[in-house]
Amino acid sequence: MGDDQCIASKKSRSMSELEEFDSLFPDLVDDLTKIGLKDVEISDAMKWFKEVSEYNVPFGKKNRGMSVAMSYQRFVPDATQEDLKRARILGWCVEWLQAYFLVADDLMDKSVTRRGKPCWYKRENVGTIAVNDSFYLEAALYQILRKHFRHLPYYTSILELFHDTTMQTVIGQCLDLTTAPPEGTVDFKGYTLDRYSAIVKYKTAFYSFYLPVALAMYMAGISDEASHANAKTILLQMGHFFQVQDDFLDCYGDPEVIGKIGTDIQDNKCGWLVVQALNRASDSQRKVLEENYGQHDPEKVKKVKAVFGELNLQKVYTDYEETSYNELNVLIGKCAGNLPQDVFRDFAKKIYKRQK
Amino acid sequence: MGDDQCIASKKSRSMSELEEFDSLFPDLVDDLTKIGLKDVEISDAMKWFKEVSEYNVPFGKKNRGMSVAMSYQRFVPDATQEDLKRARILGWCVEWLQAYFLVADDLMDKSVTRRGKPCWYKRENVGTIAVNDSFYLEAALYQILRKHFRHLPYYTSILELFHDTTMQTVIGQCLDLTTAPPEGTVDFKGYTLDRYSAIVKYKTAFYSFYLPVALAMYMAGISDEASHANAKTILLQMGHFFQVQDDFLDCYGDPEVIGKIGTDIQDNKCGWLVVQALNRASDSQRKVLEENYGQHDPEKVKKVKAVFGELNLQKVYTDYEETSYNELNVLIGKCAGNLPQDVFRDFAKKIYKRQK
Repeated sequence: MGDDQCIASKKSRSMSELEEFDSLFPDLVDDLTKIGLKDVEISDAMKWFKEVSEYNVPFGKKNRGMSVAMSYQRFVPDATQEDLKRARILGWCVEWLQAYFLVADDLMDKSVTRRGKPCWYKRENVGTIAVNDSFYLEAALYQILRKHFRHLPYYTSILELFHDTTMQTVIGQCLDLTTAPPEGTVDFKGYTLDRYSAIVKYKTAFYSFYLPVALAMYMAGISDEASHANAKTILLQMGHFFQVQDDFLDCYGDPEVIGKIGTDIQDNKCGWLVVQALNRASDSQRKVLEENYGQHDPEKVKKVKAVFGELNLQKVYTDYEETSYNELNVLIGKCAGNLPQDVFRDFAKKIYKRQK
Repeated sequence: MGDDQCIASKKSRSMSELEEFDSLFPDLVDDLTKIGLKDVEISDAMKWFKEVSEYNVPFGKKNRGMSVAMSYQRFVPDATQEDLKRARILGWCVEWLQAYFLVADDLMDKSVTRRGKPCWYKRENVGTIAVNDSFYLEAALYQILRKHFRHLPYYTSILELFHDTTMQTVIGQCLDLTTAPPEGTVDFKGYTLDRYSAIVKYKTAFYSFYLPVALAMYMAGISDEASHANAKTILLQMGHFFQVQDDFLDCYGDPEVIGKIGTDIQDNKCGWLVVQALNRASDSQRKVLEENYGQHDPEKVKKVKAVFGELNLQKVYTDYEETSYNELNVLIGKCAGNLPQDVFRDFAKKIYKRQK
């Protein structure tokens, strides 16, 4: 019963944190566009960009964005409302950064839907203009940072953190794109667990896991290298699991629930499932994978999924989930050092066993 | 004779400045990639990005990049070799920024060649991966800035200047892309001189003209708003002329000399020539433009050029060139304030009457 109560109160707290977080979005868009909308020279661009932000930034799960303020509260339990608001604004900057990557990724991956809607580049009159729109989303976050953080001692640190995180993500995307050969050709020799782990770490874990917590740390005045290195170790490990789960859901999740139709198989992705399958496949199963992976043909996708089924990958995943959760808890105990362990445990609870 | 001597000595000085400038490039690429190339996790990405930088950054005219050090020398005539090297590195950052825009622009504009070579996205195995590569080029410049400028008092100012300039360029690109209707449709109602001027100012003039001089100003300790506003007024005016010239050369320049095959007519661009033509065209000429502009068909391009010829646009351009040069000189006299006028005159001499 105590447990239920605890969960209930946590739920209501998290609802209201989402509301608090969401309530800031319109003002941020306003700050970005209000002056420009009145300037006849650029008002058409500002109208366009207002829609770019409104379509692409606020409809995700917002776990990354919200975790800045949640982490900050763990670091500074008596935080002022002003500082909490600031942490939420930093969280929105993470969401803008993510929108920058996703708008471009969808175009590069030829994805169809994102967050339950057509991908931005798929909309009428957009197409490859989405490339410039992704540039806008990144540029916008630095305008937001300037307005709200310029006067603070950690301003340069967070600018550099965003720069570094961008570079890491771009490296990860490069590994991902160049590991998958062009559609229609098959070449599994790069599809190793090591390559998979590198893609995940660079493409996802830095910006989704380390970045939000590191921002909260800088806000809380924690800037020493050792603390950041410890947090990074834990959070990159968590990010690895998150991506394994994401890959699993891409194939086995409910599109209605995850808000997108998975296309990793069609896109020739070096995903966790195919890497596991290649490690376990017989010669004939490998042949089926080679003949059917990486092609936009529903029949071929079915054949790939059949091999995944024969190899019991759902069970392999469930076992992995259990093990990795336990390992992560050990790592938190070992590495958190002076940092409050709840920062990491909050995060872990949120992502393990998620349906989307 | 004195004049000839003066030109000769200027030529040899400018050759050696180009050599000085070029000599720094390999080390900058090395700094960006050396550690990563040894890291097995990301070495494949670093190999890829090394090629991205080497293919896309160093083959332009490099006027923008070189003008940082040249301007800096005007501000600080007794500059140390160390500071001059630093100014050249800042110049390379401008070149990296430009490469970021151009790699993406070529993809969005479906251009074929750039600087006498195939556009990066046109290369085998690249395609839309060029989007991520453009992200890399931008992220790289912030790594270069960090290594060489982090310890200097103007570091934050130049970070913000790059952020602002990026935003301005992205705004300009948006105006440009959304003013040109999709291929095959014709809609000249947005093709006004005002819209043209706004596109030029935002898409080109800020990053090509104000940015290099403003960087030199910050290096020289000139950070007051009035001086920056004055420099901006002059340099944006110069940038306007530069773009008019660029548009003229896109149609009338020698592809061998300008290093690209112009496609403004095919791309439905709101360029200076079509704006001037629309202001002068008879109803029947306007009809020819409406039926033939913005289409990738050599016969239609010819018809558009025939109307340009009937309207004497080459003469209109020559007159404009003369007038704008005189106006610019007046503006420099009026606005330079405490800034050395030669900074602006150097720049102006370089671009007026250029063939490419």
